[in-house]
Amino acid sequence: MKYIAITAVFLALSFSSSGLAQQQKVVEDFKPSSVNQIGKEYPQVNSEGRVRVQIEAPEANNVQLDIGAVKYDLIKDENGVWTGESAPQDEGFHYYQLNIDGASVPDPGTKYFYGAGRWGSGIEIPAHDKEFYALKNVPHGLVSENIYYSDLTESWRRCFVYTPPGYQTNPDTRYPVLYLQHGSFEDETGWSAQGHANLILDNLIADKKAVPMIIVMDNGYAFKPNKEQGSTPTRPAFIFEEVLINEVIPMIDKKFRTIDNRENRAIAGLSMGANQTMRIIMNNLDKFAYYGGFSGTANYPSSDEIDVETFLEGAFADGKKVNEQIKVLWLGVGTKEAEVFPKSIGAFRNMLDKQGIEHVFYKSEGTAHEWLTWRRSLYQYVQLLFN
Amino acid sequence: MKYIAITAVFLALSFSSSGLAQQQKVVEDFKPSSVNQIGKEYPQVNSEGRVRVQIEAPEANNVQLDIGAVKYDLIKDENGVWTGESAPQDEGFHYYQLNIDGASVPDPGTKYFYGAGRWGSGIEIPAHDKEFYALKNVPHGLVSENIYYSDLTESWRRCFVYTPPGYQTNPDTRYPVLYLQHGSFEDETGWSAQGHANLILDNLIADKKAVPMIIVMDNGYAFKPNKEQGSTPTRPAFIFEEVLINEVIPMIDKKFRTIDNRENRAIAGLSMGANQTMRIIMNNLDKFAYYGGFSGTANYPSSDEIDVETFLEGAFADGKKVNEQIKVLWLGVGTKEAEVFPKSIGAFRNMLDKQGIEHVFYKSEGTAHEWLTWRRSLYQYVQLLFN
Repeated sequence: MKYIAITAVFLALSFSSSGLAQQQKVVEDFKPSSVNQIGKEYPQVNSEGRVRVQIEAPEANNVQLDIGAVKYDLIKDENGVWTGESAPQDEGFHYYQLNIDGASVPDPGTKYFYGAGRWGSGIEIPAHDKEFYALKNVPHGLVSENIYYSDLTESWRRCFVYTPPGYQTNPDTRYPVLYLQHGSFEDETGWSAQGHANLILDNLIADKKAVPMIIVMDNGYAFKPNKEQGSTPTRPAFIFEEVLINEVIPMIDKKFRTIDNRENRAIAGLSMGANQTMRIIMNNLDKFAYYGGFSGTANYPSSDEIDVETFLEGAFADGKKVNEQIKVLWLGVGTKEAEVFPKSIGAFRNMLDKQGIEHVFYKSEGTAHEWLTWRRSLYQYVQLLFN
Repeated sequence: MKYIAITAVFLALSFSSSGLAQQQKVVEDFKPSSVNQIGKEYPQVNSEGRVRVQIEAPEANNVQLDIGAVKYDLIKDENGVWTGESAPQDEGFHYYQLNIDGASVPDPGTKYFYGAGRWGSGIEIPAHDKEFYALKNVPHGLVSENIYYSDLTESWRRCFVYTPPGYQTNPDTRYPVLYLQHGSFEDETGWSAQGHANLILDNLIADKKAVPMIIVMDNGYAFKPNKEQGSTPTRPAFIFEEVLINEVIPMIDKKFRTIDNRENRAIAGLSMGANQTMRIIMNNLDKFAYYGGFSGTANYPSSDEIDVETFLEGAFADGKKVNEQIKVLWLGVGTKEAEVFPKSIGAFRNMLDKQGIEHVFYKSEGTAHEWLTWRRSLYQYVQLLFN
């Protein structure tokens, strides 16, 4: 009986989400999304944050909009054009796809972004605070694609490097560096394309709220080459730390005008990247003096009390030493993220408090495990760097 | 009767192209395309240059591969997975789409490229001479995204800037500049993403076959803002020449370490870009000393004899002066391009010969109005610059 009741609740929930757009009155003030392809009228977004898509598919039986883990049915008109909209979405950036008779494909109306393990469609629900990452008439830095061969992974890799306004025209100035990592199923393109890291810095530097800095955005997926060809395939070993420390940092310090010391080197990451970069800084305190963890910590997904003697090989056991070495230890999370994030970050913060380790904690109001949380986190974090 | 006979020929041709893949034996040595998304097995290419695509669409009635202006029917298996292949394609790069029950969408297996007026799928048919644009273990330059506000268009614009190997580490060296333009329905991303301009230069510079140079790739679509709001909309005026001369060149000369004189400035473009840049150099011989026209000339699409007194306001009337001022006048075309290209370029060359104007003419064997023609053209052209 209990089982049946729970099933009924689930069914009701499931119906209410897929039928929501039809049941509620939709505000008819849709505008083309800011990340549409040139000249494309759809997808559109209204003031409630609903996403309306439209696609011509005259012979299709069923077309759906797949966004936020919900599929919304579209309706076909007499010309074979399908149209429909989602329930209101959180402000910020979302990945989505269209589903045409069972085929999951990008919407031909949008630009494409790498996330969720694929190049696919994205949409921007205008945020009330969008000005901090808006393209404004201020001096702009450059984002450069830097290709390199990694001996450790035996493969070509790529990082994007932001150089701040003035870098090109002040050949005698050297700059501090932030190493900034993406999350799982994302890549080195995310922080500039979806995160607008360059625009956030351009705006902060123009307002003198952040010091001019270089930002290096590499790919956190780096694996040891599998030499045992022919034998049972094994899960490849993650060696991003080795690649970053032994290949990327020396290359950046050689190729760009950096200040090559720990006090002028910061590291931060989102989600998987927060976990990775926390391990990296604690193993390499001679290299970095600033840490930022956006929606992640190295104890993820556990919310258990942390055993400070064993966690990261005792890296936080000497709280006084950590306070001396890490100039800013920064943590952030969105208030709408799944419980596992605030809970694991909470357990980490409890450990910090117990050890007397100073840190900054930031909550992004009304955002989930998505890019608006991380844009805001970056905005807050970089203001505290290299002062 | 004549009409019927012609129709019959057309029908026969039309059947043979759509049924070609089925009728001929397909060589089963397909490999994933080099421009697939990470981890994607399809699309694939075989040694004949056929493109095989695969997509899950269990409820679809009809799925087609749309490439080279031909639609090929795919076949559904018992799991709802559709598979099929094209006729052999020319070596080089091609845009394509999938058609799912009448919806034209990108293939979720590929990376996306801007061409044909959209972000969509691309595929690479390995060329016999692909080494000249391959990613090799040589020093690599940077490709930087440079955002700027254009007062002339009243809009934000973007160019990509290639700086050669050594640019970052030799702060006292200044470099010549090539301004390199895309074709119609393409944009400022084309020359690096599809054209591999950066890799072509990296390889040539490593071989000492080209001098280190900066390459600026801007967007040829630049329009005068429409001030007459509310009145009858007019076709906006193309003002790319004004933007390039008055905004882009001064910005590049300020931001990058260029050699700011005509002998160290070249311009080239493909198709529409060839037409645009020929007009630009002839109007601005004080700014440029080298011209490259890849699959295009300013008399396009006409193959009529050129009246040298009126063509481009008499810019070629004084052949001796042109010879003195343009150090290299370079033209190229693919042997498989539609007739209008070789014919209009031929008419232009006839005029040059008549005027006694020296020029270099290059034919790309076996390639059409596509990127392999333009990669080869760039490879040939840049070796003649700034010597």
